[in-house]
Amino acid sequence: MEDMNPINSVGIVTPQDFLFGATGEDALRLDCGKTLRNVTIRYETYGILSEKADNAILVEHALTGDAHLAGYHSETDKKPGWWDSMVGPGKPFDTNKYFIVCSNIIGGCSGSTGPRSIDPETGRRYNMNFPVLTIADMVRAQKHLMDHLGIRKWLAVAGGSMGGMLAIQWAISYPDSLRSVIAIATTSRISPQSIAFNWVGREAIMGDPGWNGGEYEEQPQRGLAIARMLAHITYLSDESMRKKFGRNLQDSKDYSFNFHKDFEIESYLDHQGTRFVERFDANSYLFITRAIDYFDIADYGDGDLTKAFSRIKAAFLVVSFSSDWLFPAYQSRELVKALLDNGLDTTYCNIESSYGHDAFLLETKSLGTLVSGFLTARHLEVVS
Amino acid sequence: MEDMNPINSVGIVTPQDFLFGATGEDALRLDCGKTLRNVTIRYETYGILSEKADNAILVEHALTGDAHLAGYHSETDKKPGWWDSMVGPGKPFDTNKYFIVCSNIIGGCSGSTGPRSIDPETGRRYNMNFPVLTIADMVRAQKHLMDHLGIRKWLAVAGGSMGGMLAIQWAISYPDSLRSVIAIATTSRISPQSIAFNWVGREAIMGDPGWNGGEYEEQPQRGLAIARMLAHITYLSDESMRKKFGRNLQDSKDYSFNFHKDFEIESYLDHQGTRFVERFDANSYLFITRAIDYFDIADYGDGDLTKAFSRIKAAFLVVSFSSDWLFPAYQSRELVKALLDNGLDTTYCNIESSYGHDAFLLETKSLGTLVSGFLTARHLEVVS
Repeated sequence: MEDMNPINSVGIVTPQDFLFGATGEDALRLDCGKTLRNVTIRYETYGILSEKADNAILVEHALTGDAHLAGYHSETDKKPGWWDSMVGPGKPFDTNKYFIVCSNIIGGCSGSTGPRSIDPETGRRYNMNFPVLTIADMVRAQKHLMDHLGIRKWLAVAGGSMGGMLAIQWAISYPDSLRSVIAIATTSRISPQSIAFNWVGREAIMGDPGWNGGEYEEQPQRGLAIARMLAHITYLSDESMRKKFGRNLQDSKDYSFNFHKDFEIESYLDHQGTRFVERFDANSYLFITRAIDYFDIADYGDGDLTKAFSRIKAAFLVVSFSSDWLFPAYQSRELVKALLDNGLDTTYCNIESSYGHDAFLLETKSLGTLVSGFLTARHLEVVS
Repeated sequence: MEDMNPINSVGIVTPQDFLFGATGEDALRLDCGKTLRNVTIRYETYGILSEKADNAILVEHALTGDAHLAGYHSETDKKPGWWDSMVGPGKPFDTNKYFIVCSNIIGGCSGSTGPRSIDPETGRRYNMNFPVLTIADMVRAQKHLMDHLGIRKWLAVAGGSMGGMLAIQWAISYPDSLRSVIAIATTSRISPQSIAFNWVGREAIMGDPGWNGGEYEEQPQRGLAIARMLAHITYLSDESMRKKFGRNLQDSKDYSFNFHKDFEIESYLDHQGTRFVERFDANSYLFITRAIDYFDIADYGDGDLTKAFSRIKAAFLVVSFSSDWLFPAYQSRELVKALLDNGLDTTYCNIESSYGHDAFLLETKSLGTLVSGFLTARHLEVVS
């Protein structure tokens, strides 16, 4: 809490759990044809819901994110939520004005129902018997939470990376349930290059004997770390790696002539892999990356993105970053073109940045200005 | 052989072995401080060495290449050498005019001494006791072959990718032993992003229990396939993958909702991984990628590339490809700048191509024109 600035922090927040689908009737229907019962959604809220419930914003997290968007969980908590720089009093997602909701996606491993949850049918963990989800399934589960919270229309649904896919999906699945979308460093469909990286990551996990067909007690450490290290390379940029690490050696002045960590970049990746194994579940990683593979919004228009977007009513803020090669700017421009083809209120900015894909978490200043202005305009529409 | 065109094929070639270092005296000195005894170099030659031995060209292979550059090994051989499109009578590396040499690098697994060779000290395979090599070590071994062949000055040393690094290294290590360098899709130093990809690939191999500290009988199949699939993504481009595979599904019309090969790109990568395990040794992969990590020609100029190049006498042809993101064009331009700073005869071309790094094997036409013209000019210098 030493780092906590009481002026612009949301302070201490308490995660909450919403349960639904205890009976077969309100079970969650899934795109694969199956249903999910006893669904838990872990979520956090910040700010106060207005009487008209017209100031609610849903923030979507990325692949390995969670519901802990901002603030601290306790007085001794050292690390704030993952987008604390953007969410709080006076910040772009201004908790003095807006009621912010963030929920852990289903399929995840941070409180919401996922592959490590107990299958009510068997009394044991789902593991690989968990149904293969889609981004639309994750959004469908969030709609249950929305109804539970008494919100009829989000002022905005916002997210970066996979979070942006969920935000776009909201506009397609529930066009009348949101006023706007903030889609950051994201895409309307996953490219074969991204599918390829996801494939190799999953092969690393499933190839680790410790994975054991998903029936592990301890994580398949090596495989999961490899998947994470690989993914992490795609989150940075060639330029940011050269700036941050270059060819710097870790400990010695000369090459060690062995296969240990010689370069700083090797040590950095190793650290990222190790830390990830401590916090993220291997099976969740499999299921969520598969949901990402399957994400192609053009499917809603028989392969035609413009047609798919014809049902959308939301205004859009689309933001890309110049050095993002995971979801490059051309993918945002495709998205913007399809929105404009439908005459939708669309704002687009390609922010110059060397941070690569991770820029959506780091370029707080330029991103904050865009988000703040866009939200203010949406808010004026409802309060005026 | 059915595919063999007798008009422009070199026909049937026989690989040869050159041995040196049987005594301690002519053992190969290595950058790590160790020496290598009983060194075998597997090589092939094409065309006829002129009386003055002034028409010899050394072609360097890439990471997983071998000495079989062109032609066929037998009447029933179906597949020609790896650069057959570029080497033969009337082709850019014209065997009617030039004497072409290609040798498997030391550290490799295709005939030359590598980690799976027998250590004369122990009578057992080196495996991880093999010394960690550098690109300079590989070139030093080739110098022994050059002397053995009675060649005093290469007309050119040419190579793509890692092969280009060896070609540049020749110009640094033996400035008087070559007239020119053809450096294609390569770099003067490996970027941290490339080091990172190499690291993850090696972690996949060494994390496979089948690797067993390098003491395997059967290959660590899973780990090696993962390393290859990952590397293979870096050889293609986002654009070429979209053109070739897009989001096409392999067998079904709809998503399978499982973790098998759904997309064509997944099936393609899986195939590449499987094939690679059949032909390339896991320990060799470790040693060669490490040598690549250590490649930074600026080390010869205390970190200053222009200073490092001050000893060079060779003329250079530098070729990059617009969509190559493994060794992007800016890295070739750095190289070219340092050459020009030293007043060296330098030709540079960035070829527009969507094939990514693999373009050096595929853009035969435009590359061939450049190589052919460059070699003709060099040849005229010696025959006139």
